[in-house]
Amino acid sequence: MGKPLYVGLDVGGTTMKAGVVDDDGKSLGAVSLPTEAYRGQEFGLERMCESIRQAVAQANLKMADIAAIGVATPGTMDIPAGIILDPPNLKPWRNVPVRDHIAKVFKKPTAFQNDANAAAFGEFWAGTGREAHSMVLFTLGTGVGGGIIIGDLVLEGEHSHGGELGHMKIQMTDALQCGCGRYGCLEAYASATAIVKRTQTALAAKGAKSVLKVQAKKEGGITARDVFDAALAGDALADKLVEDTAFYLAVGAMNMMHTIDPDMVVYTGGIIATGEWFLDRIRKHVKELAFPVPAEKTQIRYASLGSDAGYIGAAACGRQLALKLGRSGKI
Amino acid sequence: MGKPLYVGLDVGGTTMKAGVVDDDGKSLGAVSLPTEAYRGQEFGLERMCESIRQAVAQANLKMADIAAIGVATPGTMDIPAGIILDPPNLKPWRNVPVRDHIAKVFKKPTAFQNDANAAAFGEFWAGTGREAHSMVLFTLGTGVGGGIIIGDLVLEGEHSHGGELGHMKIQMTDALQCGCGRYGCLEAYASATAIVKRTQTALAAKGAKSVLKVQAKKEGGITARDVFDAALAGDALADKLVEDTAFYLAVGAMNMMHTIDPDMVVYTGGIIATGEWFLDRIRKHVKELAFPVPAEKTQIRYASLGSDAGYIGAAACGRQLALKLGRSGKI
Repeated sequence: MGKPLYVGLDVGGTTMKAGVVDDDGKSLGAVSLPTEAYRGQEFGLERMCESIRQAVAQANLKMADIAAIGVATPGTMDIPAGIILDPPNLKPWRNVPVRDHIAKVFKKPTAFQNDANAAAFGEFWAGTGREAHSMVLFTLGTGVGGGIIIGDLVLEGEHSHGGELGHMKIQMTDALQCGCGRYGCLEAYASATAIVKRTQTALAAKGAKSVLKVQAKKEGGITARDVFDAALAGDALADKLVEDTAFYLAVGAMNMMHTIDPDMVVYTGGIIATGEWFLDRIRKHVKELAFPVPAEKTQIRYASLGSDAGYIGAAACGRQLALKLGRSGKI
Repeated sequence: MGKPLYVGLDVGGTTMKAGVVDDDGKSLGAVSLPTEAYRGQEFGLERMCESIRQAVAQANLKMADIAAIGVATPGTMDIPAGIILDPPNLKPWRNVPVRDHIAKVFKKPTAFQNDANAAAFGEFWAGTGREAHSMVLFTLGTGVGGGIIIGDLVLEGEHSHGGELGHMKIQMTDALQCGCGRYGCLEAYASATAIVKRTQTALAAKGAKSVLKVQAKKEGGITARDVFDAALAGDALADKLVEDTAFYLAVGAMNMMHTIDPDMVVYTGGIIATGEWFLDRIRKHVKELAFPVPAEKTQIRYASLGSDAGYIGAAACGRQLALKLGRSGKI
């Protein structure tokens, strides 16, 4: 009898990814299937089961080899109840009893978690946060999400709203509007969408000069990546936009450093591709913004697991549940 | 042999307060002694011991009846090391080994904690937060402090900067300067000091009308309390200042609700004397600012232990340490 194995499943708006993970957080490989949420939630639940089965088969294992399962999904959700409520990225799903369905089908201890929280737990267990005692993860994409891990605690919150880091308010007057409808959220300043919007505003200003003006007229328009590329190529307008983005992210980090005070602040998402120079800009602003001791000691890093963090973290949630149930071996 | 008893000591800039607390968080009474920090840290350590002795004697007990001790002090500090580093409110103290000194003198398990964290733990254990699983406390006074409790975890942070709630940044442009030197901190908007400053600015504006103009010319000038009183009496300028204060505090609450997502947000300090109508204003803004579920479910309350919260919370830290050490009975 070897060490216990776990399956993690990360359900996204476009694809779901499942993989078998060993007791040290090492992945034995993963499979990806299209989510096709439009086909309805019954189909969705069956596809989740199929993903789990394929992940196990792909690792040359049987379900009997699996000690526990973890499933991560986007919100909105009721984490303790194991239910997805009304997920904007999984329409038309509504009140889907994910955890109990999976547990019933496979007859395994099944954990349920928010996807960004799971990604944070994955990075904490097996990625950048491996040596940390506590970690705050910012997920940067269309929106800004996040997760907070303190010791073995995934801070899911009392109403499943823990770690909604994109929706801390960092500006009160003349604040930009967020995708959530509120004003002044971190996401309204630092998401990829926000970067593009701020770029469009900057380009529309009288006398604005930038190589991005050409790009803006092309099909598809400007992406956040274009702005970073232009900044790297020496474009002054793009550089200012990137510098502002680093500042906004540092404000988000500062607010976590003065409340959670974690060992590490970690960023994940497309932004990682820009490279270490952008992280250095965030670090510079953090040093200026935060209190001396956390400014000096808190590590500011990129994530290392990429899109595997979600299912690895989901598996970590399954593992945590199994340990809690006293089932650390195969069952 | 009855239930175990604990001594809590809360060291403040002006006075220190010590009391014996039973295993249910009930105080058996307390004593207050002047801190007299200017007399030096050796004197200060002896005064701490004297406070503890007097608290025990005042409850008609002997030191042998005490299971553990908890000491809370203002920062800056290294909580795991049990040391006050360079406290602005306890000058000229520097690098004072509080925990080990107390532990050595009394030969008891001794816990050490930040004073605002201890107050939060006190309210959580024996006050307003008694029924909560998690709680965020804002302490409103000259500054804005705070503490975060999640289950049995006092979130002290990895670098003893957990719960520095006054120093989350809520404004980036044209931001007010904080007592800490930074700009845009919650404290710069919502502390008693900030309320007075904002009032002075408002009164200095051309054409400003307010009953506070008379008060401003009196000896001692305006206090935050004057502003609340004037608002209650129907003064429009004062009412706007109070309304803004409620909004700023709601922004602080919102940021905690979207990151920690606690059961309760609790306020303590002189502000409690203003009464429930001010709390209702904060609640109104929270409802508008936060996501629907936490906005609906998070309780917004005043603290109930007053200035006893610190030593009761310190005692709770001592109790937690004793339980951890497996010494739940008398030793």
